[in-house]
Amino acid sequence: MQQAIGGIEGEIRVCMQYLFQAWNSRGPVRYRDMLLETGTEEIAHIEMLATAVALNLEGAPLSLQEDMAKDKVIGAVMGGMNPQHVLSAGLGAMAVDSNGNPFNGSWIISSGNLAADMYANVMAESTGRLLATRLWEATDDPGMKDMLSFLIAHDTMHQNQWLAVLEELGGLKGVHPIPNSFPQSQENQEFNYTFVSTHIDRMSETDARWAKGQSMDGKGEFSVITAEPQGGEPQLGAPDPRGHAQVEQMDGQAGMIDKIKDAF
Amino acid sequence: MQQAIGGIEGEIRVCMQYLFQAWNSRGPVRYRDMLLETGTEEIAHIEMLATAVALNLEGAPLSLQEDMAKDKVIGAVMGGMNPQHVLSAGLGAMAVDSNGNPFNGSWIISSGNLAADMYANVMAESTGRLLATRLWEATDDPGMKDMLSFLIAHDTMHQNQWLAVLEELGGLKGVHPIPNSFPQSQENQEFNYTFVSTHIDRMSETDARWAKGQSMDGKGEFSVITAEPQGGEPQLGAPDPRGHAQVEQMDGQAGMIDKIKDAF
Amino acid sequence: MQQAIGGIEGEIRVCMQYLFQAWNSRGPVRYRDMLLETGTEEIAHIEMLATAVALNLEGAPLSLQEDMAKDKVIGAVMGGMNPQHVLSAGLGAMAVDSNGNPFNGSWIISSGNLAADMYANVMAESTGRLLATRLWEATDDPGMKDMLSFLIAHDTMHQNQWLAVLEELGGLKGVHPIPNSFPQSQENQEFNYTFVSTHIDRMSETDARWAKGQSMDGKGEFSVITAEPQGGEPQLGAPDPRGHAQVEQMDGQAGMIDKIKDAF
Amino acid sequence: MQQAIGGIEGEIRVCMQYLFQAWNSRGPVRYRDMLLETGTEEIAHIEMLATAVALNLEGAPLSLQEDMAKDKVIGAVMGGMNPQHVLSAGLGAMAVDSNGNPFNGSWIISSGNLAADMYANVMAESTGRLLATRLWEATDDPGMKDMLSFLIAHDTMHQNQWLAVLEELGGLKGVHPIPNSFPQSQENQEFNYTFVSTHIDRMSETDARWAKGQSMDGKGEFSVITAEPQGGEPQLGAPDPRGHAQVEQMDGQAGMIDKIKDAF
Amino acid sequence: MQQAIGGIEGEIRVCMQYLFQAWNSRGPVRYRDMLLETGTEEIAHIEMLATAVALNLEGAPLSLQEDMAKDKVIGAVMGGMNPQHVLSAGLGAMAVDSNGNPFNGSWIISSGNLAADMYANVMAESTGRLLATRLWEATDDPGMKDMLSFLIAHDTMHQNQWLAVLEELGGLKGVHPIPNSFPQSQENQEFNYTFVSTHIDRMSETDARWAKGQSMDGKGEFSVITAEPQGGEPQLGAPDPRGHAQVEQMDGQAGMIDKIKDAF
Amino acid sequence: MQQAIGGIEGEIRVCMQYLFQAWNSRGPVRYRDMLLETGTEEIAHIEMLATAVALNLEGAPLSLQEDMAKDKVIGAVMGGMNPQHVLSAGLGAMAVDSNGNPFNGSWIISSGNLAADMYANVMAESTGRLLATRLWEATDDPGMKDMLSFLIAHDTMHQNQWLAVLEELGGLKGVHPIPNSFPQSQENQEFNYTFVSTHIDRMSETDARWAKGQSMDGKGEFSVITAEPQGGEPQLGAPDPRGHAQVEQMDGQAGMIDKIKDAF
Repeated sequence: MQQAIGGIEGEIRVCMQYLFQAWNSRGPVRYRDMLLETGTEEIAHIEMLATAVALNLEGAPLSLQEDMAKDKVIGAVMGGMNPQHVLSAGLGAMAVDSNGNPFNGSWIISSGNLAADMYANVMAESTGRLLATRLWEATDDPGMKDMLSFLIAHDTMHQNQWLAVLEELGGLKGVHPIPNSFPQSQENQEFNYTFVSTHIDRMSETDARWAKGQSMDGKGEFSVITAEPQGGEPQLGAPDPRGHAQVEQMDGQAGMIDKIKDAF
Repeated sequence: MQQAIGGIEGEIRVCMQYLFQAWNSRGPVRYRDMLLETGTEEIAHIEMLATAVALNLEGAPLSLQEDMAKDKVIGAVMGGMNPQHVLSAGLGAMAVDSNGNPFNGSWIISSGNLAADMYANVMAESTGRLLATRLWEATDDPGMKDMLSFLIAHDTMHQNQWLAVLEELGGLKGVHPIPNSFPQSQENQEFNYTFVSTHIDRMSETDARWAKGQSMDGKGEFSVITAEPQGGEPQLGAPDPRGHAQVEQMDGQAGMIDKIKDAF
Repeated sequence: MQQAIGGIEGEIRVCMQYLFQAWNSRGPVRYRDMLLETGTEEIAHIEMLATAVALNLEGAPLSLQEDMAKDKVIGAVMGGMNPQHVLSAGLGAMAVDSNGNPFNGSWIISSGNLAADMYANVMAESTGRLLATRLWEATDDPGMKDMLSFLIAHDTMHQNQWLAVLEELGGLKGVHPIPNSFPQSQENQEFNYTFVSTHIDRMSETDARWAKGQSMDGKGEFSVITAEPQGGEPQLGAPDPRGHAQVEQMDGQAGMIDKIKDAF
Repeated sequence: MQQAIGGIEGEIRVCMQYLFQAWNSRGPVRYRDMLLETGTEEIAHIEMLATAVALNLEGAPLSLQEDMAKDKVIGAVMGGMNPQHVLSAGLGAMAVDSNGNPFNGSWIISSGNLAADMYANVMAESTGRLLATRLWEATDDPGMKDMLSFLIAHDTMHQNQWLAVLEELGGLKGVHPIPNSFPQSQENQEFNYTFVSTHIDRMSETDARWAKGQSMDGKGEFSVITAEPQGGEPQLGAPDPRGHAQVEQMDGQAGMIDKIKDAF
Repeated sequence: MQQAIGGIEGEIRVCMQYLFQAWNSRGPVRYRDMLLETGTEEIAHIEMLATAVALNLEGAPLSLQEDMAKDKVIGAVMGGMNPQHVLSAGLGAMAVDSNGNPFNGSWIISSGNLAADMYANVMAESTGRLLATRLWEATDDPGMKDMLSFLIAHDTMHQNQWLAVLEELGGLKGVHPIPNSFPQSQENQEFNYTFVSTHIDRMSETDARWAKGQSMDGKGEFSVITAEPQGGEPQLGAPDPRGHAQVEQMDGQAGMIDKIKDAF
Repeated sequence: MQQAIGGIEGEIRVCMQYLFQAWNSRGPVRYRDMLLETGTEEIAHIEMLATAVALNLEGAPLSLQEDMAKDKVIGAVMGGMNPQHVLSAGLGAMAVDSNGNPFNGSWIISSGNLAADMYANVMAESTGRLLATRLWEATDDPGMKDMLSFLIAHDTMHQNQWLAVLEELGGLKGVHPIPNSFPQSQENQEFNYTFVSTHIDRMSETDARWAKGQSMDGKGEFSVITAEPQGGEPQLGAPDPRGHAQVEQMDGQAGMIDKIKDAF
């Protein structure tokens, strides 16, 4: 269950993500307010999972001589037991994922663009619900299934909640392309609705939804082209002598090279 | 520009993300095929940005004595120059973000659920396009603006492309809640469409899109409740003596503690 | 045992921590000298543990076909075996913790303030001794217990050693609040000896040692207050248009938004 | 100020540390209760700092053409501005330290031993107060100085608060050596109160507080010895052939090596 | 097998390393060209391994109730199964190593010096081939052995390939010391071919290849000396008062300290 | 200079790398002995650099109001100053690189194969010497240049030293392919000396040293082939229903899907 606490799909991540989005929120105040509320709610989810991990670990074997009865093992696995649970945490939960990787602040998305943030949130609740359903499949324990069914329900709501904000912001046609405040006239007009086929020996599907018809944002028509080299062969200059490439990389800088060679 | 190469919104991430999603793809083969194509396309984007960084760095000051003319500084900043560009990379691009944090494999999402993956992709292309528009604002150089306008256009397409897959999978009502293969009857029915208000002193908005009316997935009705403590006070057992808590934490385990104290 | 080598409580950490504190030491030279001595001593502890890991791994199973006899497993677990011990290290110790997380330089505390450093050291030797006693509980092997009893003894000494420095620096009343060189008159006088109760529905304990009576540093009187919102509601400005928030976040910047919308 | 948010001395760390210690708390319930209260209080400190960073960034230059007026620069530096503040966060705070390193879950100490945890907390509040005083020195802005003086005061209290728990647990003589539940008779009696001198050419100080007299925990007498090699030269076995060392490392395993050589 | 995908010896590393070396390549264009070709080849190796992992995981047990038949376990182990393979990746490959540590961009070496890069590549292919031979020893499955024998063969070629570039660059005597563009007259002439013996009680071997005779680069004669302290005892200044060391560290700065003490 | 302390090319890395290689050393004892000696020597190099950083920082500006005289800035840059030098380290050196990334234990290579380890060491000393020459170019200060010239000389020796071990082990023809203890008859004979050309539109160079003639290890003949798809299209099975892919990914598993759909 540590994955659900400290993993990339876990509760510390969504808790901090919603709070940072709230604290950095610019624009209509009601979104800031709602983000604060749901971020606060997630603290309770971390507590619930941390407590479950600590309880599960109470039956865990502490030494190799101990009898590893089957029910103890089940508890330990559901707790996502790793050696540090015994050695570092004294049978408590940790801010790590199911492989023992520490929680990482780079997972917290707060972009300053409300629509991009909402997609980050839908994604987090989608992988989060996916994780919870997989944990639900992995256990037989009715208490555990109960707690997971509670979390799965909240994730259903949260997916809907962030999608509701996207609808308020205009739905697919109003929201995209994100950010909708950049003038599309400034983007390259040749590639903005064009699927680039990179097969060597054949063309890719031309009938797919992404290959023809109106684009999802309603602002273009899909088409397909075959990838071609763009621009010339990249051509970097000679290495700066003070960067100390090998002498053999510096052909054409004869004077400077001679000077360096003299010094040997 | 290093953020666009090795950052969480960058091209290494989307490249690897689409390729891993393809290699792990189960279900209709055409999605695997398309993911491979776009993953391959992204390699060219990394090359483009890496080359731009290396070219920008060619004018960068290598020593403190050197005159820091303004145009050199601009090149350096657009290159996202950090000390390692000189010291470790000899004026080349690196697999790091704009703060010099190394690219991190935990950012690559490939969940085994196609819809969750598509949201991860929409999100990546939303923050990616956002990043590119911010770089576009930060530079005056026409060549740079040109390259960025090319990347911004591709990100527009890619947002639309992943949204097109979501439409093929059934749109909001077919796709959600993700995963749609978990029986919703098993989730807690009290909370799956209920916004939890966590204000201490007042109720939160009850008229918002996420607070009343049909849910976005068409499978429930939104409502709002006030957060209340669920379940009793958590109650962990006494510490296992072999975990060596302080003696004072072990009241009630008198026998065992006495035995330990004797040993002193 | 890898936790004791490359974990946050491990020997690489204390070794490097004491050496960096010595190399950065300003003030009385005798502390620098002592830190160097004990930092040097810790290198021997790493060697001892690394050798033990390598010896334990010699009996480890290298293939799946091999008979996993019980005594081999014990050796492997005490060695903190992970797949990389076979695949990457050829049955040698690694600079990682018991989950395979690489040693991380951020764990090394050298703050420039001698008292803060001493607390970092007491803490490191407390969690370090805790770890060693837990490993001691987990093994039956007399040789292992012997080596651990040696390390546990050193940690007892090191706890006492750093506490002795704190006594020399003036004990609780001389040392705190750390840093003792900041004029306390400049700190907020309302909160510097006040416990903030954050319960919603009740007051917290008012008789505890931290709730009334003289403070531990002898410079104030403990009291308790109930948390209250400080300052007004935070109010960020409208987003800078060049940061490309969504258009909907920019109400009130009508002119600029119109200009952006025109461009579509 | 990002160091005070997402750095190792920062508020996310203490917030999570106190909460995890509470959730994992075994033993007297009043410590669990108090840890929850102070952990909750720290959330408000993160909010305060995040808001300050976001406000400071509002005046930050977004492009190279922009006039970098001095007051803007001051705002930016106090905000700990890094390129990601513009590129990734749209002028908001991030869960990173002042170098842009993401917050790392390995910094959260919750050991299962109450006294070890209290030292981790004293240490965190000591380096935390140190950080706040250094930020206080670095700014002229009265509003900033005010906020920092508020945080400095809280850190004074928190140092005293954790020390008060240590007093309740018995003070130096009751608490140490941590853990106090391990029978000291089992630790090596030769080294548990002995300073090991590692100078090559001279003896270290024999009059220091840590070199003679009663130990700080009142359970031993300090002494000093000169380091000497313990145990014999470590002797690892020959490499397991399936680990594929170089042939030259395998002298003495003649049969197996011949077999390998034949295969070439 | 995850170690061979996302580990430090793995295929993502060499793929990205060769591509970055190519994109940053300055000097003769043919090296850039070759690096691009081999970097591209490595993408196919990642695909091969990722597919093998995903296939192996298909038989993996998804719940604790499931019968863990021996052949399933073998598949799982060869796949380097970790809890995230089930929970996060839905039985797919991940961009992590065999301990679940995420791939890390700091492992990608592209130094700007062609010879240094070639040694980084020889090293990567040496540890890579070592890893593959250890995986080969660990499995009985003919299909797996076949795939590994294919990868081992490529690693043989790649070792030879990078050594061939080093020969073209002049071999040991032309290439070293790397970088060969720094004037050796500027390096300290006393230590550049001298082995420093750091034994306390005896001299180290004086007959070894590195202790006497012509140096490998043909530019000096090996010798041996005993380590001696260089330079005086390091002497840092008093702490800057604004860095807030403890008062006791500031002897000699009487005026300033008095001023600080007054403030208490 | 922090890059030379805590960076991937830095002194902590080589120090720990040589010590771990020694502690894990199996085979001829004299290599273990030599590795210990040089590992010990490197501790002095860390000390030298850490002291230089601390001294350089003594002149660094601590506040924004302070006059940033040119010489102070030079000191600060050469010290690799980052905000944490002031905020966290009180003007001392840190175990981080020049971007503030913490030292990372994954950089320490100790593979159990002596030849692979020697290449890791040659590589480390090549990028290390490269780094030192670049720092030498960046400074004017004679004292700094002096210290760097000392380090550059040692790196020259160390490159030669590890190459000398490789010669003792048999030179190119004896050492390669690494590991030389794996029977080459077991590797795929079609690809072990064959350069794989991955150009789409043309053949790559066939006259290069790596394309024809005897291989560097003397055990094969180089050749070139054009890359071709190997094996069939990868074909993963249908998703396991308990992994909760989307329903649309599960065509062909009709029974199970119906059962799931019923549950909605």
